[in-house]
Amino acid sequence: MKVQRVEMFVCPSATPSDTSGLQALADAGKVTRDNLVALVGKTDGTGFHDDWGRVWADAALREWTAGLLGVPKDEVAKHVIFVLSGGCPGVITPHIAAVTRDWVEVGQPGSEKRLAVGRAGSDAIPPEEVGRMGMIRKVAAATEEAMKDAGITDPKDVHLVMVKVPGLTVGSIKDAESRGHTVVSHDLTFGPEGAGSYANDAAALGVGLALGEVPESKLADDVVRRDWNLYSEVAMTSSGGEKRHGEVVVFGNSTASVSALRIGHAVTRDFIDAAGVRDALRVAGLKFKDGLPDEADLQRLVHVFAKSVIPGSDQVRGQHITLLDDHNAYQIGKALGGMLVASVTGRTTNYVSGGERNSHQGPPGGNIVAAVVRAD
Amino acid sequence: MKVQRVEMFVCPSATPSDTSGLQALADAGKVTRDNLVALVGKTDGTGFHDDWGRVWADAALREWTAGLLGVPKDEVAKHVIFVLSGGCPGVITPHIAAVTRDWVEVGQPGSEKRLAVGRAGSDAIPPEEVGRMGMIRKVAAATEEAMKDAGITDPKDVHLVMVKVPGLTVGSIKDAESRGHTVVSHDLTFGPEGAGSYANDAAALGVGLALGEVPESKLADDVVRRDWNLYSEVAMTSSGGEKRHGEVVVFGNSTASVSALRIGHAVTRDFIDAAGVRDALRVAGLKFKDGLPDEADLQRLVHVFAKSVIPGSDQVRGQHITLLDDHNAYQIGKALGGMLVASVTGRTTNYVSGGERNSHQGPPGGNIVAAVVRAD
Amino acid sequence: MKVQRVEMFVCPSATPSDTSGLQALADAGKVTRDNLVALVGKTDGTGFHDDWGRVWADAALREWTAGLLGVPKDEVAKHVIFVLSGGCPGVITPHIAAVTRDWVEVGQPGSEKRLAVGRAGSDAIPPEEVGRMGMIRKVAAATEEAMKDAGITDPKDVHLVMVKVPGLTVGSIKDAESRGHTVVSHDLTFGPEGAGSYANDAAALGVGLALGEVPESKLADDVVRRDWNLYSEVAMTSSGGEKRHGEVVVFGNSTASVSALRIGHAVTRDFIDAAGVRDALRVAGLKFKDGLPDEADLQRLVHVFAKSVIPGSDQVRGQHITLLDDHNAYQIGKALGGMLVASVTGRTTNYVSGGERNSHQGPPGGNIVAAVVRAD
Amino acid sequence: MKVQRVEMFVCPSATPSDTSGLQALADAGKVTRDNLVALVGKTDGTGFHDDWGRVWADAALREWTAGLLGVPKDEVAKHVIFVLSGGCPGVITPHIAAVTRDWVEVGQPGSEKRLAVGRAGSDAIPPEEVGRMGMIRKVAAATEEAMKDAGITDPKDVHLVMVKVPGLTVGSIKDAESRGHTVVSHDLTFGPEGAGSYANDAAALGVGLALGEVPESKLADDVVRRDWNLYSEVAMTSSGGEKRHGEVVVFGNSTASVSALRIGHAVTRDFIDAAGVRDALRVAGLKFKDGLPDEADLQRLVHVFAKSVIPGSDQVRGQHITLLDDHNAYQIGKALGGMLVASVTGRTTNYVSGGERNSHQGPPGGNIVAAVVRAD
Repeated sequence: MKVQRVEMFVCPSATPSDTSGLQALADAGKVTRDNLVALVGKTDGTGFHDDWGRVWADAALREWTAGLLGVPKDEVAKHVIFVLSGGCPGVITPHIAAVTRDWVEVGQPGSEKRLAVGRAGSDAIPPEEVGRMGMIRKVAAATEEAMKDAGITDPKDVHLVMVKVPGLTVGSIKDAESRGHTVVSHDLTFGPEGAGSYANDAAALGVGLALGEVPESKLADDVVRRDWNLYSEVAMTSSGGEKRHGEVVVFGNSTASVSALRIGHAVTRDFIDAAGVRDALRVAGLKFKDGLPDEADLQRLVHVFAKSVIPGSDQVRGQHITLLDDHNAYQIGKALGGMLVASVTGRTTNYVSGGERNSHQGPPGGNIVAAVVRAD
Repeated sequence: MKVQRVEMFVCPSATPSDTSGLQALADAGKVTRDNLVALVGKTDGTGFHDDWGRVWADAALREWTAGLLGVPKDEVAKHVIFVLSGGCPGVITPHIAAVTRDWVEVGQPGSEKRLAVGRAGSDAIPPEEVGRMGMIRKVAAATEEAMKDAGITDPKDVHLVMVKVPGLTVGSIKDAESRGHTVVSHDLTFGPEGAGSYANDAAALGVGLALGEVPESKLADDVVRRDWNLYSEVAMTSSGGEKRHGEVVVFGNSTASVSALRIGHAVTRDFIDAAGVRDALRVAGLKFKDGLPDEADLQRLVHVFAKSVIPGSDQVRGQHITLLDDHNAYQIGKALGGMLVASVTGRTTNYVSGGERNSHQGPPGGNIVAAVVRAD
Repeated sequence: MKVQRVEMFVCPSATPSDTSGLQALADAGKVTRDNLVALVGKTDGTGFHDDWGRVWADAALREWTAGLLGVPKDEVAKHVIFVLSGGCPGVITPHIAAVTRDWVEVGQPGSEKRLAVGRAGSDAIPPEEVGRMGMIRKVAAATEEAMKDAGITDPKDVHLVMVKVPGLTVGSIKDAESRGHTVVSHDLTFGPEGAGSYANDAAALGVGLALGEVPESKLADDVVRRDWNLYSEVAMTSSGGEKRHGEVVVFGNSTASVSALRIGHAVTRDFIDAAGVRDALRVAGLKFKDGLPDEADLQRLVHVFAKSVIPGSDQVRGQHITLLDDHNAYQIGKALGGMLVASVTGRTTNYVSGGERNSHQGPPGGNIVAAVVRAD
Repeated sequence: MKVQRVEMFVCPSATPSDTSGLQALADAGKVTRDNLVALVGKTDGTGFHDDWGRVWADAALREWTAGLLGVPKDEVAKHVIFVLSGGCPGVITPHIAAVTRDWVEVGQPGSEKRLAVGRAGSDAIPPEEVGRMGMIRKVAAATEEAMKDAGITDPKDVHLVMVKVPGLTVGSIKDAESRGHTVVSHDLTFGPEGAGSYANDAAALGVGLALGEVPESKLADDVVRRDWNLYSEVAMTSSGGEKRHGEVVVFGNSTASVSALRIGHAVTRDFIDAAGVRDALRVAGLKFKDGLPDEADLQRLVHVFAKSVIPGSDQVRGQHITLLDDHNAYQIGKALGGMLVASVTGRTTNYVSGGERNSHQGPPGGNIVAAVVRAD
């Protein structure tokens, strides 16, 4: 039988256009035109709207990948999924993680579940469905399909689902309204009533629906960004005006994988909850000694993916914080997530995105943490 | 014999001018005109140069204290030391800690060392001595005097020394130059060559000299902000153009105290070193369970004082970070220190100051953490 | 007959709590408990949400005014209207303008129209009316009443209407929804879909309705922040969650005034339109020489009130600008308005508020400018 | 005789990597491998230290130019001078101006002086000379050489001198100190005592020396960034750690040019002095009508180059401004210069650099403005 062998290579980036780490992997035969599934990274820069570091990184990586694959730049997206999150405030090292999947012939399934990856595109999502049930359902369907592609049947084996969905634009709003539809918001930002926030959160609920985290009976247009008790523990979502379909990448563990890696996840219960980060490492399979990850065992940690959504409340464990009033809350909120993870893992090459306020990605006030470790 | 009994009361502040917590302490007879030694706090606001939150808090606290003491506002500083650090980015709750010292008659010294506090003013420090050996020596002398006031003889019993010294101003530079002297810098900022940074760092070396952390033979004008291997592990210093003398408050443990509190300190070895924070709690006397502070025992934690000086290097544990290139590094650097402490203590009412780059306050790349606990 | 004599005194503020200029006016008998109508000012600070400079100024001014009037602090608002706009980026000097109105007995009305001021409170505006027709109508009614108070009958004589209205809060939204009503937005910010923006803009449309600038037939809930062709040329509005009623101050010219002052207004047609600022000075009565305000005549300029709303488009006169993408657009947009005015008036003590994107205060892309001059 | 014909083409940039405007010029034969002298532009982004927009633009423009010239990328700098200034806050449109120079055979010199351009490299400037007399003298020599290259003999005919010089780096400081030399500063920033500021300002004094604006007798190491009465009215300078030599481009008018263009300059006397901007347009040759540039004649305006150095004083025309206390002063200061120019020219494609505090580029508190117009 054919099973997959997934690898993940974390390459620090000296500049946004630095592809030297990827090239070294290609030269060594580790990353090939046939096995490259996704490039997931944090790019150098402020992370604000006019952060050209992310755009430059995107251009440089697409050019490099086009060269690797031998296809035109604008066809790269058909083969490889790009998830680039801008902004490395504080102790987040800019980096690109290359995810590869080789198919190998084995006599029988593995005795234990190992890292598997699968992906799928959704049906087209028109602007009137953005941030609403239409998007939720289509993302849910694509998540189920990506699980199949990953060879995962039990939703409990899914530990991270990265999703990119269409957002709204001036143009797509006009299109929807000209056809007699309304849209979820005219605010094109990622603010509390922004279309970007609605898109991201509907996508998260779609993942939750597919995985059974959120019952279908509780879902409706008007729970999006209203009922924070509905959430996914494994969805990390983003949106962009240029997209027409959703893209889903599922990471989980499966006996249909002989990967050397394993993934696990946990959630933090509030914004300072280091225990939640430790839980993710423990679930992924790191040994602990005296309540902390064993220093030697930490070498087996391959990567951490974490959200750092700002709490909607101005209270942390009963005390007032002023983060919600801070002009730089978006940047500082992301930086704080980076510190929370780094202070536990002892390293700075963590994928930490966030900064927005409130989300269906993770529980109210808390955040999602997933960890990939090398099996011992 | 007369011994001291020191208490520390941490009052969250709803606004910069909120003195309700202090008033409640005064109403309860815990803070009195006779026992109030110092008000040490973090004030709501950005922490930048035009942050009026700190100034408003200072005005409101001086007015309140003048009322408590029954003296004019401009005489308050003779009786009570104010250390207000502006800026509560991230998870730092604005608060004021009131430090009181009562003198009680006992038959014999305590069997164990408890929290003692002492203070002293330095000789006048003219502008030409700011950031140089003159300031170092005068701060050292005042530190020794404050130790005596605290009843502490062994420098090892000192765990925190808060110092305020004169900085430079346009006026004081003119004064020095008109008398034929030079000054350490014409840059009035807290930048890398700023007079404020030189003043703070000379003060830190003065503490180090008094405590034997820095040998006198290694000190000279030109090691200030050059030789980072010279540092104090317990000095937290600040400077202001309006001052003419240094002010020193020493916190340590002494058998001449029957306080219910005890203090301890440690240093972090780099910017993500949560172990350093845990060390401070352990040294102060908290019990640990499975490598982490025991949850029940954490109730005995009264307060944490920490610096969050940004490392001078762009590397943390071998990986590049971009903090030094960040326009908001000052604010983010402070926020990250707040997260490092809060993630260990599980609370947000920590005194965390910093944001500047490099310092003789703490080791290169690392920072000072002091903890006050209620003895069990 | 009784006519009014209005004066306006502009006092630069050294700090947010500086009331020395006002006190000097009180000492000189120019500002009295009987004649003080309004304090309108720009306060030192960032202008962002956590700018305590504005809050401190508000507290200090209310305390000073309470002393002047001999009433408790919380009754000051019944007698004097406070309009404090936070943030003095760039070349805007922090200042407070005191507006006074004395009543004098004259034999007959003046031969020319002079500065008159009037004010009125609106009926209570419940949360469900915020940003909607209810608010528009109540502000319109109050504007008409304030015109009467000012002795102005022709809307063309009105050149500036300052309005403060209730915004939404977590509490008031709950209240409205518990009574079965919806609210205009759950976003409590001043962002594009923020309740604060809706409140300000409904207030502006209310002024426009009262003055005949906007026909009632075109008004409806869903034109607010949608149809930018509806606007007032003289409304400067703000909103706050603590208010329950609207407050309106009308400035115009009237023969029922023997003031030494006169007011005029104009609008800029886009963000760099210095000609619009010059127009306001010309309309108010300054002489021009060679296309520019005559230098000697400029001495007669008393004050300028201007909005600096950021254009909703990323184009200025056919060229792309990046302001809409700038994290600091709010602050920079306000600063640019300050420069546009100062570059024409040759002084920095101008009242310039703004920074938000799009508004019914002024035409699309342009802004309101009103000028008060001493009649020659 | 051979005379030059200089052209200047201003191309707005949609993104940092947009070379379409240049390519259109190349396609039209206006910009060629033989005539391209310099690319001078403003790049999209924040202008802060981590603004990757400028770096990306630099990479893209070098690649495009290498293609045009048919040389390797790292040889482009030998042929074409790049001056890219990062940051387009407010109303500054990102753009690239291409400067070309063709040599044409004419019978006799022109009857009037027209735009001429010349360039020269300086001798190597070692780190110990950065910001000091060594740099001043070498820049002066190169300026004289560039004047010769431009065919200009009278310094009064020089209206703009763009200079790039070496700054200091950690490495070059080590190098200087290892050879027994000191350096001007260990602060590598552009702050008040930063090496970058010293380098820029020594370069400006070098231009002033060459042009006779600053007498040699007044120059010494210790007047740099101290005696602000010494300045050039035409120097726009920048510095970078990667450079070893200075580069100078002189723009002026000469009878040895048959260009259709002409250049002129003036200075503003303070930060809000629109008259200074108008003066530059007038000197360059625009007609004025009623004190303002004639609207029709403004079509002849080709480009404006302006500095926006922040004043060292907190007073503008006798009133306090808070710009010096503003965390974003660098960005806002640049934006304000952009508004001052745009409010006069009625267009946003102006080259405005600055944001730093105090400079020998222009008079104390004022700034340099140069304008290029098409002769009528």
